[in-house]
Amino acid sequence: MDNTGKILLDLFVIFSVAKVAGGVFNRLRQPAVVGEILAGMVIGPSVLGLIGHSGFLDIFAEIGVVFLLFMVGLETDITELLRVGKVALGVAMAGVLVPFCLGWGLMAGLHKPLVEALFVATALVATSVGITARVLADLGQLGSRAARVILGAAVADDILGMVVLAVVSGIAKGTFSLPNTALLALEAGAFTAFVIVVGRRAIKPLWARFPKMHIPQPAFAVGIALCLGLSAAASYIGLAAIIGAFLAGLVSAEAEEAAQLRRRMEPIYDFLVPIFFIIMGSRVDVPRLISMEVLPFGLLITALALAGKFVGCGLAAWGLGRREAVTIGVGMAPRGEVGIVVAMVGLSRGVISVDIFSVVVMMSVLTTLVTPPLLKVLLGRREVVI
Amino acid sequence: MDNTGKILLDLFVIFSVAKVAGGVFNRLRQPAVVGEILAGMVIGPSVLGLIGHSGFLDIFAEIGVVFLLFMVGLETDITELLRVGKVALGVAMAGVLVPFCLGWGLMAGLHKPLVEALFVATALVATSVGITARVLADLGQLGSRAARVILGAAVADDILGMVVLAVVSGIAKGTFSLPNTALLALEAGAFTAFVIVVGRRAIKPLWARFPKMHIPQPAFAVGIALCLGLSAAASYIGLAAIIGAFLAGLVSAEAEEAAQLRRRMEPIYDFLVPIFFIIMGSRVDVPRLISMEVLPFGLLITALALAGKFVGCGLAAWGLGRREAVTIGVGMAPRGEVGIVVAMVGLSRGVISVDIFSVVVMMSVLTTLVTPPLLKVLLGRREVVI
Repeated sequence: MDNTGKILLDLFVIFSVAKVAGGVFNRLRQPAVVGEILAGMVIGPSVLGLIGHSGFLDIFAEIGVVFLLFMVGLETDITELLRVGKVALGVAMAGVLVPFCLGWGLMAGLHKPLVEALFVATALVATSVGITARVLADLGQLGSRAARVILGAAVADDILGMVVLAVVSGIAKGTFSLPNTALLALEAGAFTAFVIVVGRRAIKPLWARFPKMHIPQPAFAVGIALCLGLSAAASYIGLAAIIGAFLAGLVSAEAEEAAQLRRRMEPIYDFLVPIFFIIMGSRVDVPRLISMEVLPFGLLITALALAGKFVGCGLAAWGLGRREAVTIGVGMAPRGEVGIVVAMVGLSRGVISVDIFSVVVMMSVLTTLVTPPLLKVLLGRREVVI
Repeated sequence: MDNTGKILLDLFVIFSVAKVAGGVFNRLRQPAVVGEILAGMVIGPSVLGLIGHSGFLDIFAEIGVVFLLFMVGLETDITELLRVGKVALGVAMAGVLVPFCLGWGLMAGLHKPLVEALFVATALVATSVGITARVLADLGQLGSRAARVILGAAVADDILGMVVLAVVSGIAKGTFSLPNTALLALEAGAFTAFVIVVGRRAIKPLWARFPKMHIPQPAFAVGIALCLGLSAAASYIGLAAIIGAFLAGLVSAEAEEAAQLRRRMEPIYDFLVPIFFIIMGSRVDVPRLISMEVLPFGLLITALALAGKFVGCGLAAWGLGRREAVTIGVGMAPRGEVGIVVAMVGLSRGVISVDIFSVVVMMSVLTTLVTPPLLKVLLGRREVVI
């Protein structure tokens, strides 16, 4: 069996396991992504060893996450976001600041390296819009005020989280120094602002020109080219490639063809993204994670992740009344894919250890698993179907 | 810029160039695939050097061709094929035998190694269904008797070509010996027959079971798993992975969900397949190809490719009258992607040289470019739009 054959076999195992695990978790009314990550942990080298590490699969997974973030951007409506009220923005800011500070504080208190502390803090920042939205939709609560605040804040969190990640991944590139950091923060901010401001204006004329070039499915062709190009550009200036992909999605969402693009991206997403989560799961060192050296730390980080959003977002929403504030504090908790993406960037840049990576994956999985039943108690009239 | 960044940049360049080149060729009323191959030749290391060789891109291209052959299989209707008459089958057989013997004869006459001769002969075998069908459709001639014979024979050619490739790629694995070859031919035949006979029966109950597993888009999930699994299996028993992919498509085409699967495969095809053709083009050593050492040989092979199908298929269709026989002989000529796929297998197994690879690509491009205008003269009432 040649090299390609081995990779095809790996992809077959990964894809099949991902789809079956996702299906089982759907049946258990849990998010498919959690099933994929847990399945990856089981078939990975630290448990069953059905798949090993390979340079090709690592890059393949990174291309998967590039398309994942492109889709997240594509589903983020900047205009809609600008319409959500001050409360949502306050919730978003507090939901970024409090978990970030808690995470950093804990890591600093434990005398961990600065860059590692920054990555853990960043992984605690972003809220996974998808899971929260799904729970709210299943509860028939998408129209409620609490839901609108949560969704608006979650979208803002994604953007803020990406900006923080841009800065942190920039810092991870070099040795840490204040002028260096300031420069990188400036670079990250300038890139983001440039793409959003210029991109939003340029996208419509750009798109309008393409049908004349006789390219079939121009929306798809331009969207993918934009995603690959901005990812490479972000990588070129030292940011994580996914920042570029996210911005490409954000900008493409403004085009009239966005719905068509989203529809055609779906199969690529369905193919690549489950593979990404399986590979992420497979990188967790399960025996280490459940060892007494790592497990308490993992549970502490998870508690911090829940407390950070609950306290930060809950307080910011206090003006809406106690019950809604509590709902918002809980609804902002799931980290889902975004926490894992941050950890992946840290791991692939060699600035966080496998232990820390495993802990962040655990935190992402647990915050995601814990939210739906809690929301059900708070909001629930009918059963939560995820 | 890290490794992933470089690959994203390569993919951006390759994908954008592919789409623009495809668009230009569409505008010139030529097949997009020819534009992609030529663009790949231009941006490849032998001319502009915009993209280089990389292990990742090579494997990525091979995954692209796996999905290409899966789609070819998915669009091949075995039942329909069994309905075409004796003439079409005769045309198919003659269209395989005559070019194969001519190719082998030439290579043997030039004292080339046996395995190289086998690959060149095999590359001359298959007719590219897509291009022929497109020309016939654009001429409004899909309903004519000549068209039905060409399409039926082209489909049969694809299957016969894959069987020949299975045997030849098996032979390329080991040293050549008669019992060895017989064993491999048997293995290839048995694998093909097993997948087609058992697969066709098993596919419907298999498919019917999946919706119960709560997997979203089960047709897509099962189709891709089948494609990856049979590719890996083919590779495991020493055949080319694409044989498995083609058979997976052939079998999936029998499922009720085939139309849905085809629709969802399209974006993956649109993303991966142009990348494959650009990379194939980039592997051609252009200065060598147009040198006096290689060019005459390339033109000779191209002439043989045209003559082989013209004589073989034309004679087999002689009973339909001179004009239809000539049309069929010409219509069977384009090799398009299939010739290139055969050459790729040979190159990646290290049994054909870059010179021979370049010649086969040239032959595929030229037979594809030459057919539409000739068909237009023979059949044409209106302009050929490809």
